[in-house]
Amino acid sequence: MNYLRNGDEIYRQSFAIIRAEAHLEELPTELALVAVRLIHACGMTDIVKDLDASSDAVAIGRAAIANGAPLLCDAQMVANGITRPRLPAANQVICTLNQPEVPTIAAQLSNTRSAAALELWRPNLAGAVVVIGNAPTALFHLLELLDEGAPKPALILGFPVGFVGAAESKAELAANSRGVPFITLHGRRGGSAIAAASVNALAKESEL
Amino acid sequence: MNYLRNGDEIYRQSFAIIRAEAHLEELPTELALVAVRLIHACGMTDIVKDLDASSDAVAIGRAAIANGAPLLCDAQMVANGITRPRLPAANQVICTLNQPEVPTIAAQLSNTRSAAALELWRPNLAGAVVVIGNAPTALFHLLELLDEGAPKPALILGFPVGFVGAAESKAELAANSRGVPFITLHGRRGGSAIAAASVNALAKESEL
Repeated sequence: MNYLRNGDEIYRQSFAIIRAEAHLEELPTELALVAVRLIHACGMTDIVKDLDASSDAVAIGRAAIANGAPLLCDAQMVANGITRPRLPAANQVICTLNQPEVPTIAAQLSNTRSAAALELWRPNLAGAVVVIGNAPTALFHLLELLDEGAPKPALILGFPVGFVGAAESKAELAANSRGVPFITLHGRRGGSAIAAASVNALAKESEL
Repeated sequence: MNYLRNGDEIYRQSFAIIRAEAHLEELPTELALVAVRLIHACGMTDIVKDLDASSDAVAIGRAAIANGAPLLCDAQMVANGITRPRLPAANQVICTLNQPEVPTIAAQLSNTRSAAALELWRPNLAGAVVVIGNAPTALFHLLELLDEGAPKPALILGFPVGFVGAAESKAELAANSRGVPFITLHGRRGGSAIAAASVNALAKESEL
């Protein structure tokens, strides 16, 4: 069969197609660089219209990751999607969802395990990059933690997916991000691949 | 903040929204049950129009997994998305992408690491369920292995994503699946969450 087999060339052609087809001119230049990688992860150029970010988010995210900020992920799939060789400071990638104490915390909070897992982020939250690619309840609970005075992360990458709470939690983030820079994708779309791609985009400017 | 915090209830409401909005009546009954879970994973009801499967795929997939078929995944994110407690036979979940010999095999084959990793599937290929949620080259190479006479898996779940080769590899699968039952999503969309959801749907009929 005739198909492209060179990984670098596949990347180059993919990114060229994205630049030709997506309306990246609708985005600030810095955010457009990130958008290319998000589009690459999901195969959909029309996510551009749903992207939203605070004006300082990309620069602050790049600086935080360069300075070694830990990456706090709501799901193991998000953690697995982060390309370790792209990380400039051997940043810690942390997912607490499967910690043994999480079900007990969830019962205490009357919330999901995804939300409860954030309670274990507290020691690492100050200056971290939070990456939510699965659970709306995780994003909602993060905002609750910030309202209660928890240490502020450097950046919130908010990409929960689905039909119950995803659009609502991202709308709340964009309306009031509690003073924390953010990048999000409005609506039901999101997911671990897009969330991980946002980290990969901020970790290194080069496409390859 | 006011949001739904009960995991089971979030599932129920999500699936109810999907059943109300998606045109599931366009699909065979068995495939519709799988489609609900794929839609849940990606937040998009309109994937129904791009779903394609051989007529026997769902029944054969359910039987294979019930009988303990190993799940051969092209990416670690796919493997991580498979909900282990749903698996009826403690099925092995295998991803060979990060095996140390893969880069050498990739160089020998002049193909990607994702494609090369399939060479290490050969001992487990007969009767397995293949789950491709990332790399078009993995799906193309699987079809090449079958053309060369490799043992046939029980089912191919073909959900590579992206701009170069994804649509083409899935079109080739649907046009000639080499006698192997398949489920696929035509076009550029796909990805590890959808691929893992297809396994989770076949592993257990219950939504929760």
